[in-house]
Amino acid sequence: MAGSNAVDKAARYQQRMQRQKQVVDAAIARAGQEKGLLLILTGNGKGKSSSAFGMAARALGHSMRVGVAQFIKGRSDTGEEVFFRQHAEVTWHVLGEGFTWDTQNLEHDSETARKGWSIVQTMLRDAAYDLVIIDELTYPLKFGWLDMELVLNDLRQRPLMQHVVITGRGAPDLLCEAADTVTEMRDIKHAFRSGITAQKGIDL
Amino acid sequence: MAGSNAVDKAARYQQRMQRQKQVVDAAIARAGQEKGLLLILTGNGKGKSSSAFGMAARALGHSMRVGVAQFIKGRSDTGEEVFFRQHAEVTWHVLGEGFTWDTQNLEHDSETARKGWSIVQTMLRDAAYDLVIIDELTYPLKFGWLDMELVLNDLRQRPLMQHVVITGRGAPDLLCEAADTVTEMRDIKHAFRSGITAQKGIDL
Repeated sequence: MAGSNAVDKAARYQQRMQRQKQVVDAAIARAGQEKGLLLILTGNGKGKSSSAFGMAARALGHSMRVGVAQFIKGRSDTGEEVFFRQHAEVTWHVLGEGFTWDTQNLEHDSETARKGWSIVQTMLRDAAYDLVIIDELTYPLKFGWLDMELVLNDLRQRPLMQHVVITGRGAPDLLCEAADTVTEMRDIKHAFRSGITAQKGIDL
Repeated sequence: MAGSNAVDKAARYQQRMQRQKQVVDAAIARAGQEKGLLLILTGNGKGKSSSAFGMAARALGHSMRVGVAQFIKGRSDTGEEVFFRQHAEVTWHVLGEGFTWDTQNLEHDSETARKGWSIVQTMLRDAAYDLVIIDELTYPLKFGWLDMELVLNDLRQRPLMQHVVITGRGAPDLLCEAADTVTEMRDIKHAFRSGITAQKGIDL
């Protein structure tokens, strides 16, 4: 009996693996179009920006050129910035100098955001950039510092093969509608809340 | 009236920003403990592995040493692997050679997984690794190729300051219970389903 159970188990296992392979093969067959993608990484969970920077690493492995624009974070001591600035194929802009929620002035913040966007525009108009990461763009949009139509228009008119990754909580619906891929990072359990400080190499 | 509306708007904006700052400050004050974290990146959405590799970049920016172990993926042409193998501070192991769902043999897959885990163990016992990424570990666990108790035990006994990031769909409950941080990547919209092929620098 034990032997026959083992045979059954192996057979069920093989069936399950075959079904899984069929599903994957069918999806690959359907997918055949090549174009630059617009990806949104949103939600309250960890991993939005780090996922974007992982794609930067992936792109660099394919000898692609990467542009990064970070809104909000005026700091320049993050591990990712130190690391990627060492790579000639990466252009890195910190655009949020002076606006975080410590800056309580709408006009000033709007002007900072608009100046920042003009730098993003130069990358969205330059086909030399294979991948453009716009980190934490959702905040300037949410707070009304940037005009959504302007942003959508620049994204639409970018070079055909250019990938763009946008990160930040609460991505506006209009932005998600324009995107090819939207992932929500959901915070199931978070170390920060349970009294553990932000950690180098993980959060910073 | 228009002027007074603008004043109201600015005042409401300032109030909102002040509330947001209070929330952030309080969270920072609560958080004060330093230790190596166990992070799980799970869910069906894009960005689990790329997020782990973004943390690798972040860690390298802090001159930390990174170990990567990839289960399942027997391929060696991914952008992330090409890129990170160029960096001396990174040790990269592909452990899934020969098991994907193309391999329809339970015993063979289990043995491959156990051999792979023994390599992960060497990193989990070596405090020289500041960050260990175990990519797509959930599959060997889900398919019963690896013993959960063995895995949990090795994770528990790792060096105090070592961070571990585990990725993969359907992370088992026992693993999530052991983790400090669990993020679920939810697939809200996916380019692959709408007929666009996997793209270099984004998916590969």
